[in-house]
Amino acid sequence: MRILLDGMGGDNAPLEIVKGAVWASKEIEDEIVILGDENLIKAELAKYEYDRSKISVKHTSEVILQEDSPVKAVRRKKDSSMVVGIEMIGRGEGDLLVSAGNTGALMAGSTIILGRIAGLERPALASVYPILGGKASLLVDAGANAECRPNNLLEFATMGSIYMETVLGRSNPKVGLVNIGAEEGKGNSLMKEAHQLLKATERLNFSGNVEARDIPAGACDVIVCDGFTGNIILKLTEGMAWSILKLIKKKFTEGAVAKMGAALLSGKLKEMKGAFDYSEYGGAPILGVKGPVVKMHGSSSANSVKNTIIKGIPYAKENVISIITEELEKISEMEVLSSSADE
Amino acid sequence: MRILLDGMGGDNAPLEIVKGAVWASKEIEDEIVILGDENLIKAELAKYEYDRSKISVKHTSEVILQEDSPVKAVRRKKDSSMVVGIEMIGRGEGDLLVSAGNTGALMAGSTIILGRIAGLERPALASVYPILGGKASLLVDAGANAECRPNNLLEFATMGSIYMETVLGRSNPKVGLVNIGAEEGKGNSLMKEAHQLLKATERLNFSGNVEARDIPAGACDVIVCDGFTGNIILKLTEGMAWSILKLIKKKFTEGAVAKMGAALLSGKLKEMKGAFDYSEYGGAPILGVKGPVVKMHGSSSANSVKNTIIKGIPYAKENVISIITEELEKISEMEVLSSSADE
Repeated sequence: MRILLDGMGGDNAPLEIVKGAVWASKEIEDEIVILGDENLIKAELAKYEYDRSKISVKHTSEVILQEDSPVKAVRRKKDSSMVVGIEMIGRGEGDLLVSAGNTGALMAGSTIILGRIAGLERPALASVYPILGGKASLLVDAGANAECRPNNLLEFATMGSIYMETVLGRSNPKVGLVNIGAEEGKGNSLMKEAHQLLKATERLNFSGNVEARDIPAGACDVIVCDGFTGNIILKLTEGMAWSILKLIKKKFTEGAVAKMGAALLSGKLKEMKGAFDYSEYGGAPILGVKGPVVKMHGSSSANSVKNTIIKGIPYAKENVISIITEELEKISEMEVLSSSADE
Repeated sequence: MRILLDGMGGDNAPLEIVKGAVWASKEIEDEIVILGDENLIKAELAKYEYDRSKISVKHTSEVILQEDSPVKAVRRKKDSSMVVGIEMIGRGEGDLLVSAGNTGALMAGSTIILGRIAGLERPALASVYPILGGKASLLVDAGANAECRPNNLLEFATMGSIYMETVLGRSNPKVGLVNIGAEEGKGNSLMKEAHQLLKATERLNFSGNVEARDIPAGACDVIVCDGFTGNIILKLTEGMAWSILKLIKKKFTEGAVAKMGAALLSGKLKEMKGAFDYSEYGGAPILGVKGPVVKMHGSSSANSVKNTIIKGIPYAKENVISIITEELEKISEMEVLSSSADE
């Protein structure tokens, strides 16, 4: 398998990206192609020992920046590491693309260049959501679609279930719809209508609404919502974890007794910090486009890059995209969609 | 001042409600009238020593339940503790109403019986949002309006600022609009339009969009969003705090060394738990109705009841409602609103 890695995306490019590629290549048999400024990337690579048959560089002359307008950037920066990577996936010259770059551009580029899976209205970003002391959930949409129609949420639930089952290996995953009450009549009109669509779909293991309070405890395997809500959930979770770790650090260094206690607990504190560490979980696949593209956090460390590469491999290998295509066809044949379109 | 207390609302009524009233009455000079089943409440009161000139009971024969449909319940259960309380506020027979009952019913009842402040479209629930190691923020709307128009968010920002300044004593509070990006063009159409309205309002200290990641660190004093988003933020924060405390408990009791460390840190751990404790912060005022009504958490403890009563007093005393009325009048005169209505 050939993995394409955007060497120029994210806050820590190319340093951490290259280091992560080197680390990953020691654990996998697959080939990694790093896309980006040849001089910069080769200079980084020169710092490490690595198998030259497994890592190569493809030169690209442009970079899509965080502040670039997504669609414009994709259209204009044809020789950017990101666009070249997506084009290569489209031509079958790579099996998986991993990027820490501009999320909107990666989403737009994948949609424009690779195209949507037939019958799908909106591709989505699926993000692993860490559950403290439990198995991670998958959050779809994690921020790609700020505005959604009920039908999009059915698409997200379907794609998320397939990804959870196929790539993350959890069979018959429990799907929950994010809402502000457990009862089915609750919420805004989007969630009320989406609830009815999800309920009517026998193909999903839909467990009803999930309240935000129950998400961190792992109430469901696939957390479905619009991208605005998904982004709020993901970012607030990060912010809370950060605030709490900061408070722990402050409290546990106040005075000699506390410091002694903290010393005795240092192993446990490290384990707790690890539980919050997104870098262990791999990246966020863009679901619904005709090729495996995975987004990493913009501030990904080498460890995160390594994990995203390794954990992304099953997305390319397991034929997820054809399973999604088949499943969406079955759904579109169902009455439920045509009746919702009439509303 | 006469404080009306819904003796029948919430999961722990009347036990914790009555106990909280007794505790509060020891700290304030004001009179407390507990509304509800006279036999039940008097039986609870009999357990305590209290000043009989400061606590009395007003018998009501009905109870609005958690599962009742709000508007129906308000219309049909005329002799419920909640409806009687709101009616008394409307007739000037009480200065503040505190209830842990059905939020929707309290909101609907207050709106129907007391009426909206002139010029206001949507009353909102404002909830104190705890900031670990810092001053609490105020979240508006915390869940009353699942669906909002941009103009409603301007109303929420205005009312929240006034409440923060007048009742919580923080002058010129910084207002942040919850959004999925810091830049003003980000988000769904609601947030994009609301951003423009807030920006055009010179009367507010608007600091722009606030990302969910920055909310727990206290990025702004008044957090403005629609009620769907607000409920997600509030509940997810609760859920995260709960999950983390559970993890700490688990980790810190694994093995003898950890237990010893935890023993040395017991004071600090208690302080941390306190920082998460909503019961210290008082209740959530319903802003925008013509009378001071405060909602408590459904599972309020006696301590929470006590704090809600005590911290609710300035809402009644400070003439918040007339300040809001004046401010809304000024806003409605501004061009910005008429131009937004044209869109």
